[in-house]
Amino acid sequence: MCEANAYLYEDGQEKLLLESVDVVVPTMTEVFLKNIFDQQKTIAGRIKELKLVDHRIILERFSQK
Amino acid sequence: MCEANAYLYEDGQEKLLLESVDVVVPTMTEVFLKNIFDQQKTIAGRIKELKLVDHRIILERFSQK
Repeated sequence: MCEANAYLYEDGQEKLLLESVDVVVPTMTEVFLKNIFDQQKTIAGRIKELKLVDHRIILERFSQK
Repeated sequence: MCEANAYLYEDGQEKLLLESVDVVVPTMTEVFLKNIFDQQKTIAGRIKELKLVDHRIILERFSQK
């Protein structure tokens, strides 16, 4: 299977948000995640980077002032 | 390998942009794609949806007025 793990990049570290993610739908302010077990999460933030060969989805919060 | 194919969704159809994509980096206005053969493309638009189990990355242009 070719799902990926989703991480939140924050304070220089990556925190695991959801494993085995299949579907990712970004909106202007949020990212919706759904994994192969039908678990869902919605994160306020954006996609920073995907590294699919490494099975990694990196999200980040919007820049804070 | 778990790379995915990137498609541009336009006029109700999906057009293949780049096969075997590994790295995806969205900015506010563009999406940078790099595949496992080190081919690169930058598309003006945004990520519409990822379906990783189906190996699909769907991009779209920003809404046009």
